[in-house]
Amino acid sequence: MVETIDLNSDLGEGFGQYQLGDDDAMMDIVSSINLACGFHAGDPCIMANTVNKAKAKGLAVGAHPGFRDLHGFGRREVHGLSASELTNLLTYQIGALQAFTRSSGYQLTHVRTHGALGNMSDSNPDMAATVAKTLNAVDKNLKLMTRPNSAAALAGSQLGLGIVRQAFADRAYNDDGTLVSRRLPGAVIHDADAAADRMIRLLEEGFIYSVNHKKVPLAVDTICVHGDSPAAIKMAELIRTRLENNGVRIGPFAN
Amino acid sequence: MVETIDLNSDLGEGFGQYQLGDDDAMMDIVSSINLACGFHAGDPCIMANTVNKAKAKGLAVGAHPGFRDLHGFGRREVHGLSASELTNLLTYQIGALQAFTRSSGYQLTHVRTHGALGNMSDSNPDMAATVAKTLNAVDKNLKLMTRPNSAAALAGSQLGLGIVRQAFADRAYNDDGTLVSRRLPGAVIHDADAAADRMIRLLEEGFIYSVNHKKVPLAVDTICVHGDSPAAIKMAELIRTRLENNGVRIGPFAN
Amino acid sequence: MVETIDLNSDLGEGFGQYQLGDDDAMMDIVSSINLACGFHAGDPCIMANTVNKAKAKGLAVGAHPGFRDLHGFGRREVHGLSASELTNLLTYQIGALQAFTRSSGYQLTHVRTHGALGNMSDSNPDMAATVAKTLNAVDKNLKLMTRPNSAAALAGSQLGLGIVRQAFADRAYNDDGTLVSRRLPGAVIHDADAAADRMIRLLEEGFIYSVNHKKVPLAVDTICVHGDSPAAIKMAELIRTRLENNGVRIGPFAN
Amino acid sequence: MVETIDLNSDLGEGFGQYQLGDDDAMMDIVSSINLACGFHAGDPCIMANTVNKAKAKGLAVGAHPGFRDLHGFGRREVHGLSASELTNLLTYQIGALQAFTRSSGYQLTHVRTHGALGNMSDSNPDMAATVAKTLNAVDKNLKLMTRPNSAAALAGSQLGLGIVRQAFADRAYNDDGTLVSRRLPGAVIHDADAAADRMIRLLEEGFIYSVNHKKVPLAVDTICVHGDSPAAIKMAELIRTRLENNGVRIGPFAN
Repeated sequence: MVETIDLNSDLGEGFGQYQLGDDDAMMDIVSSINLACGFHAGDPCIMANTVNKAKAKGLAVGAHPGFRDLHGFGRREVHGLSASELTNLLTYQIGALQAFTRSSGYQLTHVRTHGALGNMSDSNPDMAATVAKTLNAVDKNLKLMTRPNSAAALAGSQLGLGIVRQAFADRAYNDDGTLVSRRLPGAVIHDADAAADRMIRLLEEGFIYSVNHKKVPLAVDTICVHGDSPAAIKMAELIRTRLENNGVRIGPFAN
Repeated sequence: MVETIDLNSDLGEGFGQYQLGDDDAMMDIVSSINLACGFHAGDPCIMANTVNKAKAKGLAVGAHPGFRDLHGFGRREVHGLSASELTNLLTYQIGALQAFTRSSGYQLTHVRTHGALGNMSDSNPDMAATVAKTLNAVDKNLKLMTRPNSAAALAGSQLGLGIVRQAFADRAYNDDGTLVSRRLPGAVIHDADAAADRMIRLLEEGFIYSVNHKKVPLAVDTICVHGDSPAAIKMAELIRTRLENNGVRIGPFAN
Repeated sequence: MVETIDLNSDLGEGFGQYQLGDDDAMMDIVSSINLACGFHAGDPCIMANTVNKAKAKGLAVGAHPGFRDLHGFGRREVHGLSASELTNLLTYQIGALQAFTRSSGYQLTHVRTHGALGNMSDSNPDMAATVAKTLNAVDKNLKLMTRPNSAAALAGSQLGLGIVRQAFADRAYNDDGTLVSRRLPGAVIHDADAAADRMIRLLEEGFIYSVNHKKVPLAVDTICVHGDSPAAIKMAELIRTRLENNGVRIGPFAN
Repeated sequence: MVETIDLNSDLGEGFGQYQLGDDDAMMDIVSSINLACGFHAGDPCIMANTVNKAKAKGLAVGAHPGFRDLHGFGRREVHGLSASELTNLLTYQIGALQAFTRSSGYQLTHVRTHGALGNMSDSNPDMAATVAKTLNAVDKNLKLMTRPNSAAALAGSQLGLGIVRQAFADRAYNDDGTLVSRRLPGAVIHDADAAADRMIRLLEEGFIYSVNHKKVPLAVDTICVHGDSPAAIKMAELIRTRLENNGVRIGPFAN
């Protein structure tokens, strides 16, 4: 049985007047956060405020860079960026967030790519290599949070980056350990108890059941929960409580 | 006579497909550059490429943050930002650029606020204090480039920041050492020789003639030249040549 | 006693993934809507969907153009736009919305300028004249919704535009019929009953009490209510019910 | 021999302070223009000014809508837009431009989709059908400018839209009448005389030679020329002159 696990969530996804999700509630549930950096969501004030709150609660703070696509919330695949364009897109966003952690006397611990950029760069070996090289150039101590066994995990490991292997509490898995596409029925698990059960079993037994009821081995360092609806927050709370009741301590992967 | 002077110029002011000015030509003329950071102009690729070129030439690289106003090129006054909004606006942009200098093994030396933000924060004591505090929080070693005796220079000095005092080669001055508004006739000097003469006299005698033909004492560390038109580049070249012919060495203020 | 009054509200203020307010609830309360046009808020999908819903309910649809300032929600004063820049800013946004009303076989009835642009162009005679000329050029049948006796109302009348004179249910008034600035205490009325009382009296007696308890004559064609919070929606509902109970019919000014 | 042919070019591709190409020069060469609408390029002032100049010269004015991608100039493929998102994206941009033609007492004649959106919607039958339906809903009189025999031409014809069949003067063709991808060598023809020769032969004989030296029949109503560099403008001038010298009159397809 895993004794300690990180819970992470994507935060700071508002923009200007717009809010998305209840970040304050989520910061009482998770032990690390992935913070939008202003391209697909997020803005300087949200970044500053969230960093300060995360520091006060001792949460690990990571960057969650995405495509330059505020209107599509970074969920639309954008094709045709060169390797240097991708590097610079990431460097800019990570650097912007690092200025806030530094100004606050805090530390940026990790990077997880967002949305369509995340899906593409986790799986595409060329993009994965570019992401890994970029983290290495910006700050070698940044860990790369990604799906276990992804192209990104491999590329990061080869460069000596720390890898934070992530499971999704509310997502169905294919037999090969990838996520079932959101477009397919059953891709998202809405039953909070079922989601919690899956995570407890994952930490106890080291595998997850795929949509085809196969056991898929999955070594994880963090579990992603969501806070974009009241129901999602309830699920996140339940998962945390259930994990703790099963003797799992919640704490940042960085500890 | 001043023996060494910095020449600076605003660079990296394109965006995506758009270019503005001939940055390569200017990097052979100046000794320091102020680099747009993506809000009023500039983008991650331009920032990365320009930092790399500046490093190869040994130029001092500063941040040139502006309002979030790409369409207006940061020249429209935007009112109503709180002190924390201003701090975060600056922190984000400076941090983004610092990630590029750091990735390149180079260093960010200074900050100069751009356009309407520059005019407002150089003169308004509250905004000036916010700018100075922000630089102090992001990186105490960042120098603040501003008009001599401005509210920003005062606020920066009080916090112990290095101040880089700037003169404009092609701008007319009021009796109080401020610039004549661009809306008034004669605000901009188009005669390259006249501009060079003014700068040589400024470095020799320590004062500049105002539009009213008064001697205005002006202690300067850097002279701003422009590269947004072929004529501007010719003027910048002439100023450099004339200064060197008068025994003034051109070199970054940071040396 | 006024027999029929329009109730209007600002709608369609989301962007992409972001929502603001409960537009569906408000469309059951008001008789006309002012629709954001994509610069300070709103996007093509929101505009299309809201036009279709408004048509189904028979609501008057107006354009609510603002500054190019999504981050500040159009509430920051932007200075320095020329008259032609203002004209083109408005023309673009109005035209974009008109394409949706036309595609839906519906009609754009009016324009109300939003936020800081609204405050500035309602009061500044030059900007007011530009707004009026722009409406006249784009579509002479567009009515201009504005504060009674504003510079905009005067400019519009002089060009022969229809003027829709607006009162705010939840705002305190100065002795001269202008709104008390939001920065001052008491500017916003939070008591729904008090707000309804004021509006009933306004329609019965033709005046509103200022913050100094003076009677200010105010001839109005429409009352603005808000839907940006559950409390605001409750207030809007109460105002509608109270007006109807007092024998006032709610219907679009255009009827 | 074709007696009259339209020459078209993409114009109004600046943004704010940024300019791209020499629009004034091109408006003396072409007979119709495709005007960017503010999403991948263009802004309200550029649109207004260009419409006024085009009217003065009697040029046909079309909309050139693109993806919401100013940074990528609309050349990056964006995936995942639903049919209604595509419809609304187009409706908004076309409507914005129509407000300027209407305000100027002029007329919008056609639509050509830009860049990656153009490539995708010309070829993909679902997107093509959406484009055609959108034009039909916004204004049945709008002609659809596209590659001859494209999915868009077919979809437009089926709805009864006028189709303006376009050839590219400076692009190599595949055997099936599609353009050789810009990524392949030889895709772009840089020799102005060769480009002019191809167009003259096309108008005389009704076919174009493919990269494999096959005769590809091609019925065209307009020839696209470019103005984004001095060399491109020279080529456009030469093509016009050579066509006229061969007895072909240049005039808008709409005449």
